[in-house]
Amino acid sequence: MTENVTSAARVTAVDTHDIRFPTSRELDGSDAMNPDPDYSAAYVVLRTDAGDGPEGHGFTFTIGRGNDVQVAAIDSLRDHVVGRRVADLAADPGSLARDLTGDSQLRWLGPEKGVMHMAIGAVVNAAWDLAAKCAGKPLWQFLADAEPEWLVRQIDFRYLTDALTRDEALDLLRRGREGAAERAARLRERGYPAYTTSPGWLGYDDEKLTRLARRAVADGFTQIKLKVGADLADDVRRCRVARSVVGPHVRMAIDANQRWDVDAAVEWTRALAEFDPYWVEEPTSPDDILGHAAIRRGVAPVKVATGEHVQNRIVFKQLLQAGAIDVLQIDAARVGGVNENLAILLLAAKFGVPVCPHAGGVGLCELVQHLSMFDYVALTGSTEDRVIEYVDHLHQHFTDPVVITDGHYRAPAAPGFSATMRPESIAEYTYPDGTFWAADLAQRKESAV
Amino acid sequence: MTENVTSAARVTAVDTHDIRFPTSRELDGSDAMNPDPDYSAAYVVLRTDAGDGPEGHGFTFTIGRGNDVQVAAIDSLRDHVVGRRVADLAADPGSLARDLTGDSQLRWLGPEKGVMHMAIGAVVNAAWDLAAKCAGKPLWQFLADAEPEWLVRQIDFRYLTDALTRDEALDLLRRGREGAAERAARLRERGYPAYTTSPGWLGYDDEKLTRLARRAVADGFTQIKLKVGADLADDVRRCRVARSVVGPHVRMAIDANQRWDVDAAVEWTRALAEFDPYWVEEPTSPDDILGHAAIRRGVAPVKVATGEHVQNRIVFKQLLQAGAIDVLQIDAARVGGVNENLAILLLAAKFGVPVCPHAGGVGLCELVQHLSMFDYVALTGSTEDRVIEYVDHLHQHFTDPVVITDGHYRAPAAPGFSATMRPESIAEYTYPDGTFWAADLAQRKESAV
Repeated sequence: MTENVTSAARVTAVDTHDIRFPTSRELDGSDAMNPDPDYSAAYVVLRTDAGDGPEGHGFTFTIGRGNDVQVAAIDSLRDHVVGRRVADLAADPGSLARDLTGDSQLRWLGPEKGVMHMAIGAVVNAAWDLAAKCAGKPLWQFLADAEPEWLVRQIDFRYLTDALTRDEALDLLRRGREGAAERAARLRERGYPAYTTSPGWLGYDDEKLTRLARRAVADGFTQIKLKVGADLADDVRRCRVARSVVGPHVRMAIDANQRWDVDAAVEWTRALAEFDPYWVEEPTSPDDILGHAAIRRGVAPVKVATGEHVQNRIVFKQLLQAGAIDVLQIDAARVGGVNENLAILLLAAKFGVPVCPHAGGVGLCELVQHLSMFDYVALTGSTEDRVIEYVDHLHQHFTDPVVITDGHYRAPAAPGFSATMRPESIAEYTYPDGTFWAADLAQRKESAV
Repeated sequence: MTENVTSAARVTAVDTHDIRFPTSRELDGSDAMNPDPDYSAAYVVLRTDAGDGPEGHGFTFTIGRGNDVQVAAIDSLRDHVVGRRVADLAADPGSLARDLTGDSQLRWLGPEKGVMHMAIGAVVNAAWDLAAKCAGKPLWQFLADAEPEWLVRQIDFRYLTDALTRDEALDLLRRGREGAAERAARLRERGYPAYTTSPGWLGYDDEKLTRLARRAVADGFTQIKLKVGADLADDVRRCRVARSVVGPHVRMAIDANQRWDVDAAVEWTRALAEFDPYWVEEPTSPDDILGHAAIRRGVAPVKVATGEHVQNRIVFKQLLQAGAIDVLQIDAARVGGVNENLAILLLAAKFGVPVCPHAGGVGLCELVQHLSMFDYVALTGSTEDRVIEYVDHLHQHFTDPVVITDGHYRAPAAPGFSATMRPESIAEYTYPDGTFWAADLAQRKESAV
């Protein structure tokens, strides 16, 4: 629909913003490894000379300190992006991803992991946002409508071919299209199932846990999640409280946020088994493929889930090859963009492992819903045992926030990747010069005097 | 020896420098993934108020673009370091490593991988340099003289205990001390065996390869290494040339710098088997533990080596658990400092896998020699099938450069970690304002006019 606007237009600037929200003050988001997160975004806008044509928005999620390092990493990619034709980006966002991950000098800083890879993910996701906006479609629909041949061209199969070839991916996508129109209609009508972590933050007392767990059930959620791993006696008590509130039929996941070594993960999970946890999440280091496999053998029938800190498709490939996980948790903003998450969704589909995305933070719900909805409509065709994490924080800062009704994400209708933050939120929470932080720092300086 | 100087002294500043050498102009360091590296260092100096007492020096090695991101990451650690007592750092550098990797907000940017982990490694290595200088010993000797109980306290065993416990590490170190004095004397006399990569860069023509391979043998090296992986016909020709020059008894390693997928790695290596390669290095992604294991099964008796891009001790642990490598290649500046490399050396010792460090770049030879020498003197007690990589570039920029005679690294005698760069080199190659780059940029601007 915006073809005329964009055919001659080019990217003229890559704006970055260090945006931090003071979430640590309420212990929202507190867990066994992250006691005081300030949910933050290293935020990027691809500006163009297309007049009032679309911009591309993306970000890396962080939890406070180091958000400036992430901004510096995004800044280092600027020369790769400025000057590109918007039409080229919209027609082939995967080629930007390949150019960025293929920069041989920047590659040394990973490869494909950590700060530099997340920076690439932010910029590449901004290009996908731009592409979907140019097509006038929400990203999930843009992907679901795309030809399988085009989708596989967006994907870098390097280091994957021992588990998934391009031809196998093409087959999966072709089969995924059968019945896609009916599923798209059903998605628009019913939404995509969600689960909620809001009751279970480690810093909440039992009264707040009880109140929020009760509300979760009343709101239609069929799964909640509790943070565990700091103190076993506390965990036993909190799991007992939560289970008694939600009853036997609501699924209750537990999440250790990488707190344990292999043996401790098995012991601790077994000690909580009487409360029938559905999965244990991040029981150990996200790098420990063999460790997850050993834990899975040790805690069955409790399922093992991980992914929010898994650095790239190569580690996901091995988690699947090793039979190390029952549930694969993609994150929209840790790997190298939509194209890499397409590869991961295809790997999960091939291995028959359900994907239950990580979300929360700043804007992660807004982004990742598109990927699960594409998966349902045009890849696996199923929502069975699949739920997207939901946390009810910070959505008000986005122009197209997620909408949850009866425990389901509603399908977004606005064009793009739902990544656009409100200008007034950017102005208020830019660190350290936005209005909130400037006032906060002035006040602290005053009380220090 | 400097105890009086340091007992009250504190770290007063963390200075950082973006230092880049224009190595791409000679194709030094060119390989199948890195065609034009500008060898660089994100360099850090811990300054103190100890008068003319020692400073701590450390760095991350990069290959050009992104060195500024690495500097920003080091800068983000400043508040953790300034104000610490020098005596505390010298007595317990491992506690600095734990504080830095344990910063829950910064941890989100890894954890323990990529830009942020390398930044931590640079700062922590600077603390080890300071500690060894305070003790008046070269680092290898500082470590070899340390009590096993103290050494294991420097190590973070988190995520390792399924493969190596603290008690097992203690046993290995206690046994390693037997005969250490004799081995230290032998080391000072003979040095530690080296191999050379200087003949084998991909950008060199056959004449230069022949000349440098011949010189390597004449210089006493018993192993050389060739870069491979860009073009098979070229590789066959270059391996044939090199083998004919060095004869059948000099070991010839090949290095693909992560160029291949699993199947391609097996096929390509088999196609070069007639030239009797000793090991194939980095055949695929450094993240692919299961891939390395499959490649190893497919290319035996050619050995599989990797490590220069392995992000941390947790991936090394799995490479050993999976039987994926015959040769473990530590790098002094990619993981989180000397303490993490101690853990990796202990893992290798437990699994009986020889360590042949990666070196070259900027100052990597200077650093890593200390770790192998410690391993020989006070851990495994052996140099059999162990060699340290040697590349004859950029040593002149260090105040205590490596010395190679008859294919061996001479044991350093100066106190510290040999990490100190000459002030005049810093002044010349700081990017973009040092004298070299300022003149270079001015010249380019002029030729552009």
